[in-house]
Amino acid sequence: MYDERVFRARVDAALDAFLTEETEQVVALHEALAPVADQLRRAVAGGKRLRAAFCYWGWRAAWQPDSDAVIRAAAAMELVHAAALVHDDIIDDSPTRRGEPAAHVALRAAGTGLPRDDHGTALAILAGDMLMAWASHLFLTCGLPQAYLGRARNLWIKLARELVAGECLEILNGGRPQVGRAVEIIRLKTAKYTVERPLHLGGLLGGAPRETLAAFTAYGVPLGEAFQLRDDLLGVFGDPARTGKSNLDDLRGRKPTALLAAALAGAGETDRKELERLLGDPGLDAGDLDAIQGIMRRAGARDHVETMIEERAASALGAIERTRMPPDAARALADLVAATTTRDS
Amino acid sequence: MYDERVFRARVDAALDAFLTEETEQVVALHEALAPVADQLRRAVAGGKRLRAAFCYWGWRAAWQPDSDAVIRAAAAMELVHAAALVHDDIIDDSPTRRGEPAAHVALRAAGTGLPRDDHGTALAILAGDMLMAWASHLFLTCGLPQAYLGRARNLWIKLARELVAGECLEILNGGRPQVGRAVEIIRLKTAKYTVERPLHLGGLLGGAPRETLAAFTAYGVPLGEAFQLRDDLLGVFGDPARTGKSNLDDLRGRKPTALLAAALAGAGETDRKELERLLGDPGLDAGDLDAIQGIMRRAGARDHVETMIEERAASALGAIERTRMPPDAARALADLVAATTTRDS
Repeated sequence: MYDERVFRARVDAALDAFLTEETEQVVALHEALAPVADQLRRAVAGGKRLRAAFCYWGWRAAWQPDSDAVIRAAAAMELVHAAALVHDDIIDDSPTRRGEPAAHVALRAAGTGLPRDDHGTALAILAGDMLMAWASHLFLTCGLPQAYLGRARNLWIKLARELVAGECLEILNGGRPQVGRAVEIIRLKTAKYTVERPLHLGGLLGGAPRETLAAFTAYGVPLGEAFQLRDDLLGVFGDPARTGKSNLDDLRGRKPTALLAAALAGAGETDRKELERLLGDPGLDAGDLDAIQGIMRRAGARDHVETMIEERAASALGAIERTRMPPDAARALADLVAATTTRDS
Repeated sequence: MYDERVFRARVDAALDAFLTEETEQVVALHEALAPVADQLRRAVAGGKRLRAAFCYWGWRAAWQPDSDAVIRAAAAMELVHAAALVHDDIIDDSPTRRGEPAAHVALRAAGTGLPRDDHGTALAILAGDMLMAWASHLFLTCGLPQAYLGRARNLWIKLARELVAGECLEILNGGRPQVGRAVEIIRLKTAKYTVERPLHLGGLLGGAPRETLAAFTAYGVPLGEAFQLRDDLLGVFGDPARTGKSNLDDLRGRKPTALLAAALAGAGETDRKELERLLGDPGLDAGDLDAIQGIMRRAGARDHVETMIEERAASALGAIERTRMPPDAARALADLVAATTTRDS
C-alpha cells in the first residue's frame, strides 16, 4: 500500500527547506515584513499534498525512479495551490482556511498605511503573488535536468490558464447555477488542476508516452470531478472541526456547486423558494444551515452527488486497470482514488 | 541617439504576438472569458517600456548582439510590470490607469456570481495572476539558450521578492511618512525593479562580468529612485491628460512619497496641520488639490524633490562614463537617463 504519510513528510520537508530559505530572504529585506513571512509559511502548512502526490506518481508511472529532485518538483504544485487558496479566500471572502484565519484575515491588523480598512486583503494579494513566483522558482530549481523541465513548460502555463479561467468562470457565473454549468466550472477550476494536470506534469517530466498521458486524462478528469464533488458535500455536510471551515461559507457565498444545482433542480416548489431566499445571505446561522441541509436531503441532492462521486471513482479505477505502468504506481494511483473521494477533510 | 520609438514598436510587436496567442487560448476555454481576455490585453497596452529597454541594454552592454529572442525576454519584464500594476491598482483603489479605467473598475460590471459587489476586484486579482504566469512563460520561451536563461533564474525570483516586499512595506508603513522611510520603500518597490534589476537581468542573460553588473547598480539605483521621485511629482503636479491619472489619487491614498514627507517636514505649523487634515480624505476635490500644491511649494518640497532627481541623474550618468561598454549601449543608457527623469507621463 502506498504510504501516504511517508510521502507527505518528504514533500513537507522539501517545502520547509525552501520556505525557510526564502522567507529568511524576505525578512532580510526589512524586519517589518515578518508578519507577511509568517503568513507565507502558514499558507503552505497542512494540506493533503494530493497535487504533489499526483505529480510524483505521474513521474513514477513513466517508469522513472524515485528522487529528491522530483519530490521538489512535486512540492512546487503545493505552492501553486497555496497561492491559489490565498487569492481564492479573498475572492470568496472566506474567513478561515484549515481551521486558522485565512491570510487576508490574519493580516488585517498588520498594516496601517492604506486609507481603507483592507490592509489584510492588500497584503494577502501580494502574499499570493509571492507564493506563485516561488512555485515557479522551486519547479525550475528542483534539480531535474533542463531537458526534462523543458518538456513540462507548456503544461505549466496551461495549468495556470485553466486555474485562472476556472476561477473567473465561477465569478462570471451569475444567477441560478445549473448542474451542467457547475460541473463545467469544476472541470476547469479543480478537476484538471487537482488530478489530471499534476499527473501530466509528472508524466511529461518523466517523458511518458502519449498513451500514458491519455490514461492520466481518463483517470484524472473523473477523479478531479469526484474530488470537487466531495469538497462540495463536505462544505455543507462535513464536520467543521475536520474540514477547518464553516458549513455556511459556500451557502453565504451562493457558491455554484453541483450540490446546490441538484438541490435547486430537485426541490419541491416550497423548498426551492425557501432555498432561494436563504442563499447568499451573509447573515445565515446554524438554524438556516439545518433548514438548508434538510432541503438538500429531501431534494435527493446529497444522494445524487454521492452517486456522481461513486461513478467517477469507478471510471478512474478502470483507467488505471487498462494502462500498462509499474505495479507500485498502479497501486498508488488506486489508493489515491480512495484518498481523494472518501476523505472527511 | 537611441531610437526609443523603434525599440518600443519591437517590444509591442513581441507582446502583441504573445498576447494574441495566449488570450485566444483563454477564450477557447470558454467564450464567457472574453471580457477578462480583453482586460488582459489592455493591461499590457501602452506604457513607456522602460523596463524592457533596461533589460535589452543590459544585454547589449554585455557585448551581446541584437536579436528577436532578447526582445522577447525584455518584453517579459513588461508583463511583470502589467501584472504588478493590475494588483497595485486594486490595493491603492486607483480608478484609472493610463487614462482608462483600471482593470478592477473595468471588470466591475462583468461578473454576477459573488455575493458582494466586488466582482471587478476578484476578476482583476485573477487577471494579475495570469499576467504574472505569462511573464514567466514568455521569458522561459523567448528563444535564448537554456544556459543563458539559467544564469538569470535567481535574479528573477529576487526581483519578484523585492517587488512584493516593497509593496508590502508601503502598506505596512502607517502613520506619518518620513523621507528616509519613503526612500527606502521606493528603493525596493520601484528603484530596483524599474532600472537596476532589468539591467541585471539583461546583463546576466548576456553573461556580463561582475564589474558591469556593479556598474548597473551604480547607474540603476539612483536612476530608479529618480524615476519614482519624478512619478511622485507627476502624481501631484503633473497634467492628468498626460499622466492618465488624477492628481488626487496619491493624496487621497496618503501615499508615503518622499514629496509628501518633505512637505510635512518643511511646512510651517499651520500649513502642516492643514496638510495633515486633508491627507487621506477620499473626498478631496480640486480646491483641496490647489491648497495642497500651495503648501508643498511653500514648504520647498517640490524644489527639494527636483534637486534629488537632478543629483540622482548625475550619479547615473557618472556610472556610465566610468564603465567600459559598447558605445551604442553607453549612448542608449545615457539617453535613458533623460527619458526616465524628464518625462511628463
